[in-house]
Amino acid sequence: MQDEIIRSTILSIRPGNDEYREQGRRRLDSLTKPIGSLGRLEEVAAQYVAWREEKTPAIAGKAVYVFAADHGITEEGVSLYPPDVTPQMVYNFLNGGAAINVLARQAHSEVVIVDVGVDAEFADAEGLLERKIRRGTRNFAREAAMTQEEMNAAMAVGIALAEEAKQQGRTLIALGEMGIGNTTSASAMAAALTGVPASQVTGRGTGLDAERCARKAKVIDTALQMHFPQRMTTAPEAMEVLRRVGGLEIAAITGMVLGAAAQRIAVVIDGFICTAGAAIACALAPHARDAIFAGHLSEEPGHRILLERMELKPLLQLDMRLGEGTGAALAFHIIEASLRLYNEMATFESAGVSQADK
Amino acid sequence: MQDEIIRSTILSIRPGNDEYREQGRRRLDSLTKPIGSLGRLEEVAAQYVAWREEKTPAIAGKAVYVFAADHGITEEGVSLYPPDVTPQMVYNFLNGGAAINVLARQAHSEVVIVDVGVDAEFADAEGLLERKIRRGTRNFAREAAMTQEEMNAAMAVGIALAEEAKQQGRTLIALGEMGIGNTTSASAMAAALTGVPASQVTGRGTGLDAERCARKAKVIDTALQMHFPQRMTTAPEAMEVLRRVGGLEIAAITGMVLGAAAQRIAVVIDGFICTAGAAIACALAPHARDAIFAGHLSEEPGHRILLERMELKPLLQLDMRLGEGTGAALAFHIIEASLRLYNEMATFESAGVSQADK
Repeated sequence: MQDEIIRSTILSIRPGNDEYREQGRRRLDSLTKPIGSLGRLEEVAAQYVAWREEKTPAIAGKAVYVFAADHGITEEGVSLYPPDVTPQMVYNFLNGGAAINVLARQAHSEVVIVDVGVDAEFADAEGLLERKIRRGTRNFAREAAMTQEEMNAAMAVGIALAEEAKQQGRTLIALGEMGIGNTTSASAMAAALTGVPASQVTGRGTGLDAERCARKAKVIDTALQMHFPQRMTTAPEAMEVLRRVGGLEIAAITGMVLGAAAQRIAVVIDGFICTAGAAIACALAPHARDAIFAGHLSEEPGHRILLERMELKPLLQLDMRLGEGTGAALAFHIIEASLRLYNEMATFESAGVSQADK
Repeated sequence: MQDEIIRSTILSIRPGNDEYREQGRRRLDSLTKPIGSLGRLEEVAAQYVAWREEKTPAIAGKAVYVFAADHGITEEGVSLYPPDVTPQMVYNFLNGGAAINVLARQAHSEVVIVDVGVDAEFADAEGLLERKIRRGTRNFAREAAMTQEEMNAAMAVGIALAEEAKQQGRTLIALGEMGIGNTTSASAMAAALTGVPASQVTGRGTGLDAERCARKAKVIDTALQMHFPQRMTTAPEAMEVLRRVGGLEIAAITGMVLGAAAQRIAVVIDGFICTAGAAIACALAPHARDAIFAGHLSEEPGHRILLERMELKPLLQLDMRLGEGTGAALAFHIIEASLRLYNEMATFESAGVSQADK
């Protein structure tokens, strides 16, 4: 059943519309500025126009979705923070005190907090979307993080939220996550997907020193050897990567990217973990990439590798490594700037400005 | 007289306050996020706190100042656009149709347009600050762009505007410019200040092809040979660089950076031309650097060279090359984000979140 939903979602994803993109480029070239001088802002506007298929692109409604879940891999001592921090931060989100709350307020965006697998019970915590599949994943150093059913259920959470977002009139969403241990999952996924050694895609996470960082990479390499013994010669299947070494929040992100792409909603992805989820979505449905804006480049070394593989250029490079959707929410300003310029600037003709001497 | 104003302004500039910076860093480390995980946003907040000497840093009022002037060097065919475009764009600014108007509206910032040397008369154009020193500079391929008096007068315009900004309660300003031909001035200034050949700091401007770009570099090299025959062995004096190959809008920017630094106002500089003006200000008053945020990295090759020399890291890298203050206005969002995070995030203590295991 959830299998069926995932399959039909994937099948319904169409690419960006090239006619709208061309129309968008012509409009950009008519504005009172040297051709191309707004750089990436012009690319963003053209992509958004092509994706939304709107002559006058509007951001009608926006929201940041933060998916929270715990990770069995924390048993291996891969994080500086105890797993308790996941539920503690969920309360911080609900109380409006976390970085993502501040940045969403600044961007006039709603924040939706989704528990998809936190290892704690939130008795009717106000404002929390309770979609828990399981209290955390299994320790992927010993066994697969999820069963097929658990992964599909988590993906279906994201797909359903995208449908709701569409009904709520949202046209631009940002995705984020919270889960102690989840850079370890993302690193394992990046190594499995790209075939590079874990050491190249493993970073400091929330602040590990070099020794603990090396240990984290070793945990990952050993686990990958167990789950994907052939990975250096045959790339493992994307969904198997997600299931074996991913996380419940990452699966929900994969689902929400697919769902948003199916609903023609534009998606800003955040840092390394979020990008790992989006990479699975793009492997399953390559056209989903046309829906995606990479919010920022995180300090995690695996992030750059994944983005390059996906041919996505980050909008911001501010050495952030916080997650929660913070880089994506900050990128809302850049995307809105590009669309306002597109809609509001005068043309050479309307302003009576002379064109370039060619 | 203006000489005296410039001298006393320079003498009154104090560095950022290290005690406030330390206090700022402690506050940042107490917030519910891994230490340092907000990257550049944390640096921005600490710099702003140190500069403004405020425990709870506020952006009380902000504005973008766009200085417009013409350039005699356009006689040498260095630009793709005719000089008429400078006054045409001034009208576009006044009518709210230019890119800077759109970006300032998005950032809830005022825009102040200052004619400091446009080669046209604006009969009572509404909203224009008329501070014209001269209808354009002289052609620096043949003679010095300005006399000492003209340059001082243009600098004094900027200093006076900074005083007014202070009286109006502005705490954060962005600087921008418009002037056909002014990347040629900025390239000449960058080459003179850094001692590199013109070819390394000369770019496409508003869109030159490779051949015209090479010609532009040749015009600059020849002019520098005339103005500063000793420049490869003895660095020319900063104000002489500004006077001989700079522009009236660039001198006003130098003055406004100095004035803002004296008034303890934070300044976001825009692209290459604006940075050339700020470089002169920092040469005259090194502490002025503590007031400055580099808004973005422009596509002009000389911009990176100047920023590196000033040890300034740009906040945005969006391949923009428009000027007008557009990159600086866009950076307002980043600076505001950093201050909102600083002021509004919960602390580990207030939110009951466990700290890192050290």
